[in-house]
Amino acid sequence: MIKPKTELITKHEHIHKIADKISSKEMDSILKIQSCALKAIHDFMYEKEVLQLMPVMLSTITDPLCHSVYDAKIKYMEQDLMLTKSMILHKQMALMSPTRKAIYVVSPNIRLEKEHCRDSGRHLIEFSQVDFEFKDAKKEDIKDFMEDLMISVITRVKEDCKAELEALGRVGDKELTIPKKPFTRISTKDAIAKFGEEHESVLSEKATEPFWLLDHEREFYDKEHEEKPRVYLNYDLIYPEGFGEGLSGGEREHEYEKIIERMIRAKTKPEAYIEYLELARHGKLPKTAGGGLGVERLLRFLTGKKDIAEVSLFAKKAGEKIVF
Amino acid sequence: MIKPKTELITKHEHIHKIADKISSKEMDSILKIQSCALKAIHDFMYEKEVLQLMPVMLSTITDPLCHSVYDAKIKYMEQDLMLTKSMILHKQMALMSPTRKAIYVVSPNIRLEKEHCRDSGRHLIEFSQVDFEFKDAKKEDIKDFMEDLMISVITRVKEDCKAELEALGRVGDKELTIPKKPFTRISTKDAIAKFGEEHESVLSEKATEPFWLLDHEREFYDKEHEEKPRVYLNYDLIYPEGFGEGLSGGEREHEYEKIIERMIRAKTKPEAYIEYLELARHGKLPKTAGGGLGVERLLRFLTGKKDIAEVSLFAKKAGEKIVF
Repeated sequence: MIKPKTELITKHEHIHKIADKISSKEMDSILKIQSCALKAIHDFMYEKEVLQLMPVMLSTITDPLCHSVYDAKIKYMEQDLMLTKSMILHKQMALMSPTRKAIYVVSPNIRLEKEHCRDSGRHLIEFSQVDFEFKDAKKEDIKDFMEDLMISVITRVKEDCKAELEALGRVGDKELTIPKKPFTRISTKDAIAKFGEEHESVLSEKATEPFWLLDHEREFYDKEHEEKPRVYLNYDLIYPEGFGEGLSGGEREHEYEKIIERMIRAKTKPEAYIEYLELARHGKLPKTAGGGLGVERLLRFLTGKKDIAEVSLFAKKAGEKIVF
Repeated sequence: MIKPKTELITKHEHIHKIADKISSKEMDSILKIQSCALKAIHDFMYEKEVLQLMPVMLSTITDPLCHSVYDAKIKYMEQDLMLTKSMILHKQMALMSPTRKAIYVVSPNIRLEKEHCRDSGRHLIEFSQVDFEFKDAKKEDIKDFMEDLMISVITRVKEDCKAELEALGRVGDKELTIPKKPFTRISTKDAIAKFGEEHESVLSEKATEPFWLLDHEREFYDKEHEEKPRVYLNYDLIYPEGFGEGLSGGEREHEYEKIIERMIRAKTKPEAYIEYLELARHGKLPKTAGGGLGVERLLRFLTGKKDIAEVSLFAKKAGEKIVF
């Protein structure tokens, strides 16, 4: 019998608490709903001929993100490899083939959030997104696609997971409603003018169905309107009942000069993206649009749970000690 | 216009060669087959009520593996987190709930292989496996399940991807055959006695259908026969035509004393698994069996490609410089 060190013994209560969560009846219901939602997504994607790609976890490049996180990288063969923050740049490259139209990945993202995100209720340092991208699509195509997908997921979960939704209290005045198309569209600039910096949460609290927040200034790859400077062709899907953002996406910049201009504006160093820029410089990046739907945030909304850690089997919350 | 450094310019030919591979017609066919195989797997799992879990990429513990690779870990909040080599230990923990029966994950694995694996044709430093585990299952249950799954995948690919298989030359005497149940079972000990250390590749070259190689001495978690010491209740699925191993699995050790004994035998340090062992010590680990099916190796077999890098969109070969 091995003897654990004293300081480890004091942690054991915590281990069993986590084990209780992992093996709880509530988690049974959540995992059933997760599995059902994912199946609805796989079916929907296959029917629309959206190819499922495998995740990329290590690369010389990744999403710079528009908020600051701690770096996550490893060394292999004297080369620095970053852990994927999102597969956005790889999604663009995956569509370089002239005949490839649409792709998706159930993609784990590593974002080593800073301590202040600990109590947000919606930040994990690892999470998965259903990350998809379409060749030659416009923002309205993606919104339309995503609305159909969301309706399909909610419909399927309500059909196949009645007992689980009931066990989680998603009944009565908390029952999920199947949203109607088109979802409401709101400009971020209007929303800020009316509700200030807290516009997203204010609007989310008031809403009873998912809606779109349009036009955000963020990473270099989200396309700027060709005639209206500082207007961006991107969109966030916001859940109702205060659950907040569930998907970010946009049309993408794919032209070299424009990417460089946008990198400079976003204070992203072009030198860190030399191979990617080499493809852009030769006109090899295709015109695309897409988005990434956070799996755990979707689950949080579907199950009505306040804290994202409650819907993640091996949850790793920002700023917290990790056990498993 | 940014000026790339001189040493980077010399790399550009390499970038375009990789871009050509990513955007090739051949890759279009491969991705269509990949998507079809994955859809067959998702459908099969859902029908059998195997829950789809999300991948774990970072943890305090991971598979020790039975072969040596370079360490891959990062630091967060002064804690070392390892990148997942396989989710085996998390799969066991995921089944702690009394009512949860079976789970699967499309799970990215990071294995920083040493340079000697470069020319094996089947080692990538990141790959994905369809990793599944069943509560209270015996090895024969898993083999039966896996044979049905393999037949379902090959049948679906042959039906839905005729043009792609033809484009890849998987026709005529290279046509995929739908294997018949039960697959042949061969003991590793008998195979070694007959063919020596190269038994796996010799048998794979001679075979025309997938078969099982049984009873391997390896990691601590693969169960030892209760009455026959040094006989292990594990199995590898071997592809025919020289494509070699495609799945590893086994019944699992779940009892504390036995796990410790096996860790000592395999030279795995118990101190590195203190939280996991705490659960075992309290009898919380369930009795399970399962396996992991490598997605890229499956693709290599289905498409008839010699080199695994040919079937991976952003392939990262052991010992090679990484571009994307």
